[in-house]
Amino acid sequence: MSDGGCVYLVGAGPGDPRLITVRGLDLLRQADVVVHDRLVSQELLDEARPRAIRIFAGKTPGGGMSQETINRVLIHHARLGRLVVRLKGGDPFVFGRGGEEALALAGAGIPFEIVPGVSSAVSVPAYAGIPLTHRTLASSFAVVTGSEDLDKATSRVDWAALATAVDTLVILMPTRSLSRVFQELQAHGRDPGTPVALVSQGTTRAQAVVIGTLASMPRQLEDTILDPPVLVIVGEVVDLHDRIGWFGKTAELASAVLAPS
Amino acid sequence: MSDGGCVYLVGAGPGDPRLITVRGLDLLRQADVVVHDRLVSQELLDEARPRAIRIFAGKTPGGGMSQETINRVLIHHARLGRLVVRLKGGDPFVFGRGGEEALALAGAGIPFEIVPGVSSAVSVPAYAGIPLTHRTLASSFAVVTGSEDLDKATSRVDWAALATAVDTLVILMPTRSLSRVFQELQAHGRDPGTPVALVSQGTTRAQAVVIGTLASMPRQLEDTILDPPVLVIVGEVVDLHDRIGWFGKTAELASAVLAPS
Repeated sequence: MSDGGCVYLVGAGPGDPRLITVRGLDLLRQADVVVHDRLVSQELLDEARPRAIRIFAGKTPGGGMSQETINRVLIHHARLGRLVVRLKGGDPFVFGRGGEEALALAGAGIPFEIVPGVSSAVSVPAYAGIPLTHRTLASSFAVVTGSEDLDKATSRVDWAALATAVDTLVILMPTRSLSRVFQELQAHGRDPGTPVALVSQGTTRAQAVVIGTLASMPRQLEDTILDPPVLVIVGEVVDLHDRIGWFGKTAELASAVLAPS
Repeated sequence: MSDGGCVYLVGAGPGDPRLITVRGLDLLRQADVVVHDRLVSQELLDEARPRAIRIFAGKTPGGGMSQETINRVLIHHARLGRLVVRLKGGDPFVFGRGGEEALALAGAGIPFEIVPGVSSAVSVPAYAGIPLTHRTLASSFAVVTGSEDLDKATSRVDWAALATAVDTLVILMPTRSLSRVFQELQAHGRDPGTPVALVSQGTTRAQAVVIGTLASMPRQLEDTILDPPVLVIVGEVVDLHDRIGWFGKTAELASAVLAPS
């Protein structure tokens, strides 16, 4: 154990546990304390030492730990001289509230580091065979969270401007108002025929993909139950899914390659 | 070696070699052939087996390999039954032309997989202490490449719309026209006082950060020479750099933690 504690804000990557970084896994294996979210896979948690303290800090139906409590837990264990890994799904600085935790740690004088992770915003589309950019189809992309309600006066996402500002739009954590988002995008100039992909449980064995258009998706959603987490991709690049959707086709081969020789 | 060859489009992550994924490193260590770009670090290339064939496919002052040639090289080695790793800086599907390579492989009937990487768009800001989102400062971000000249009729980046559509704007591979981009953003409604960060050689020991505003940056750029790759971040989150910029402060500690005990 080091003289003084340190907190590492580590991105666990998306569902596939093999997409954690080498640096992230190294730290996880050395951690005295692991504070993790709900989206972090059991395979990764099993990589921590048996005697490491595991603390679940995710959201639960009943509420879960508040951000202030999480901050206090991180500071508490670091002050005891412990190596603390704060393990978050995806990347800690992309809708992960890692910025808030870093501010709390800096304010308390606790040394910390950010260990970026593979963001779901990029990797879930990749596992669905959808590149966010393509030389002739898309030169820009935007990432927003759909968890803010359209009716909320405080919603900061400018759907009207986003409708045409970027070629590819990625929506993380969409809510029930997704159909209204699709309507907003069309109302503000996005072609109703723009392809849309919904990816459920991306990068895991349970990955499911639904393909449609801005115009067709609301009706498709009525007949579809998708298990969270769900990610939405809007843009011409979605059309590439048919030709380069690879996941599930070569997965068997991949397992063979990873087996010890 | 497997019966049939397979191509893995692997993201190497940004400059820090420890940010490659566990899956990416596993494949790199098993590769028969590694086809890599200029931005891939020597530390990572050294992880391939001594007898692996290494092929440099990056851009050079003289031009380098064309995309068509790269596609042919990948297909050629896969058809010889080889495990081919196509190693790209950052993520293969974020301005990496991975989509084009996947299309070529699919067209040739070659099995392939995408192994997402830590994108520079997310991780370079993180190493500069800048989260792309923050609960009160930024609910959305966009990523564009600045390598398209503003004078080009074919530029597909809509700077006018981007000016206000998202809270945080990340520009990869900016060119000399960067000052004009900042002017465009102001001309289309973005506050001249909006904070801007330029990060040179992000996530490496040579990382350098220049902080300014949309209004001040053109003059600052006159006195500054930044080694590529350079990444630009525009938005209020840049202000957090002063408080949570960590890289360089705890790097010594990090080395100690990673050393074998």
